Amino acid sequence: VISWQKVPLSAPQKGQVLVEFMLSPINPSDINSIQGVYPIKPHFDEKAGYAIGGNEGLARVVAVPDEEAAESPLKVGDWVLPRQSGMGTWRSHGVFDASSLMALRHSPRPPPEFAATLRVNLCTAYRMLRDFVTLAPNEPVLQNAANSGVGQAVVQLARHWGHRSINIVRDEGFEAKAAMLKSLGADVVLRESELREASLAEKLAPATTTPGSDKVLQPRLALNAVGGPATRDMLRLLGTGATVVTYGAMSRKPLELSAGSQIFSDLTAKGFWMTRWSRDAPPGAQQEMIDDLISLNIAGHLKPVEAATHVTASQLDQAGPGGGDLVKTILDAGSKHILDFEVADD
Amino acid sequence: VISWQKVPLSAPQKGQVLVEFMLSPINPSDINSIQGVYPIKPHFDEKAGYAIGGNEGLARVVAVPDEEAAESPLKVGDWVLPRQSGMGTWRSHGVFDASSLMALRHSPRPPPEFAATLRVNLCTAYRMLRDFVTLAPNEPVLQNAANSGVGQAVVQLARHWGHRSINIVRDEGFEAKAAMLKSLGADVVLRESELREASLAEKLAPATTTPGSDKVLQPRLALNAVGGPATRDMLRLLGTGATVVTYGAMSRKPLELSAGSQIFSDLTAKGFWMTRWSRDAPPGAQQEMIDDLISLNIAGHLKPVEAATHVTASQLDQAGPGGGDLVKTILDAGSKHILDFEVADD
Repeated sequence: VISWQKVPLSAPQKGQVLVEFMLSPINPSDINSIQGVYPIKPHFDEKAGYAIGGNEGLARVVAVPDEEAAESPLKVGDWVLPRQSGMGTWRSHGVFDASSLMALRHSPRPPPEFAATLRVNLCTAYRMLRDFVTLAPNEPVLQNAANSGVGQAVVQLARHWGHRSINIVRDEGFEAKAAMLKSLGADVVLRESELREASLAEKLAPATTTPGSDKVLQPRLALNAVGGPATRDMLRLLGTGATVVTYGAMSRKPLELSAGSQIFSDLTAKGFWMTRWSRDAPPGAQQEMIDDLISLNIAGHLKPVEAATHVTASQLDQAGPGGGDLVKTILDAGSKHILDFEVADD
Repeated sequence: VISWQKVPLSAPQKGQVLVEFMLSPINPSDINSIQGVYPIKPHFDEKAGYAIGGNEGLARVVAVPDEEAAESPLKVGDWVLPRQSGMGTWRSHGVFDASSLMALRHSPRPPPEFAATLRVNLCTAYRMLRDFVTLAPNEPVLQNAANSGVGQAVVQLARHWGHRSINIVRDEGFEAKAAMLKSLGADVVLRESELREASLAEKLAPATTTPGSDKVLQPRLALNAVGGPATRDMLRLLGTGATVVTYGAMSRKPLELSAGSQIFSDLTAKGFWMTRWSRDAPPGAQQEMIDDLISLNIAGHLKPVEAATHVTASQLDQAGPGGGDLVKTILDAGSKHILDFEVADD
């Protein structure tokens, strides 16, 4: 049972801070988390009898215990992001350990919607492009589900870092998806149904030919959030010694790897999970990535992922007992909503 | 068309040697190679109009050009193995570049049948146990097709190196396979059909419990030569962060990887191909491995893989034009035959 409730809040103790949330996105993985089909589950407070959903969001520090104000790593007014999943971001206020939050002190500040939505999709794209294969200038990266939040970030980051992108989307609504991805810097956009066409090599050329040379660069990195037969077709485009990184399974079908592709083409398949990376990252690495992403946004190289519908806390307050039908509508829709706590930027 | 023929032989030139073959195994991959469904194809001599099959075999150096005898790395009487695939070992004599052969100078010499059959199966097992996951003492390795040549070598090497082995075989003929593998040092042998049983954890215990502790060691390395549903079941036994190495596909079905196993259990899938390893190995690594394997055999830790039926050159000579039906019988049987050129050991 999910509802919107008023609950009491304790005062921050030593090492803790009180924050107010500004924007908290609703991602598909948050829903899976509540359904219990995701390895991270919301923390259930036995005494209070509830758990708070949400893994991503932008908050602002509103209180630090007096005796700690001088030495706390966080100051009143700081914008903060959760360092880990499972902290519960769908709430107007919360008390957290200061060490579980990361301050965003970038000046100028990025738009709040960018800051609130960067930890899941943008960070996933960032790590997958950096941590598996070292791509040279002009080398292409291959991906499916390219119109997703991660996919859009991959296109923009690949473009900015001097690589090229081959983007596969489902056939439905192709023209609009292709136009959107091209506007973000995609080199090639293909329908799933085009992967078996004889003319495919020609269509790939804008991403696979070396400028001023005949050399064809076959992709050495593929990012997979689909699985099933379309992904099998996609893997045929890879060169020898390539890596496919799986971070989702929108088709609900497994990735199929022929023995030949593994043995003779030396294909490696790995998975990526942002939650694990955040947990295991060396100190400072997460802050460095976030700062880098914010700089790219401010410099105009990286747009926030798809505009979500804002649902305000006052709408939820007015929607009947516990948020009623409005809660149901939001959750059924998945990632297209963002909880907006109507906190002024400054 | 495959036949047994007498063909002229040129004299060894500078940098070459003349060898006589002693034993040349017939492996399934040799047949695939001739069928053209394997990336390595026998070298077709355009001028002579034929190619010679076979990728593995033991030969003896019988002539080195006079002017080179002093400085050649090979001496008359040396036992040699081909360094690479595709050289053509199904012949009584051959002229090769000295650099393409590896001398076996181990003293005492191993049995010829061990030397002749170690490059494909034993070396594959050796590398797969060493190059992907660094197993600690008592850690288990999981494998299917465990009664194959590679599988038998894996059991023996794992035992010798202080690891444990969980061995999966097909249900047919289970008792005999299990007895054979146990005699080689297998800790656990399972039928494919047992992989979904509730009592599985208990059956795995001899390989997964730490002596004198309750700690269960889930395998971090799986070796796969099968594919399809039975392999999917096998992968469920792996721990977090494990690697599955595919070197065959006896089921002719692909390896299926669920997104969950890759994303949340951090499963990595790779392939292994001995031919690539031999081509890319650093100087000396191949010789070191061969010497190590021979030492293990001489010390009694490593038996040669399954006894093959010897087919002698004189049987082939007598079998009618080009070897006739005998050639057909041998090739249809796959790996259970070894060409025996009836060369005395010394």
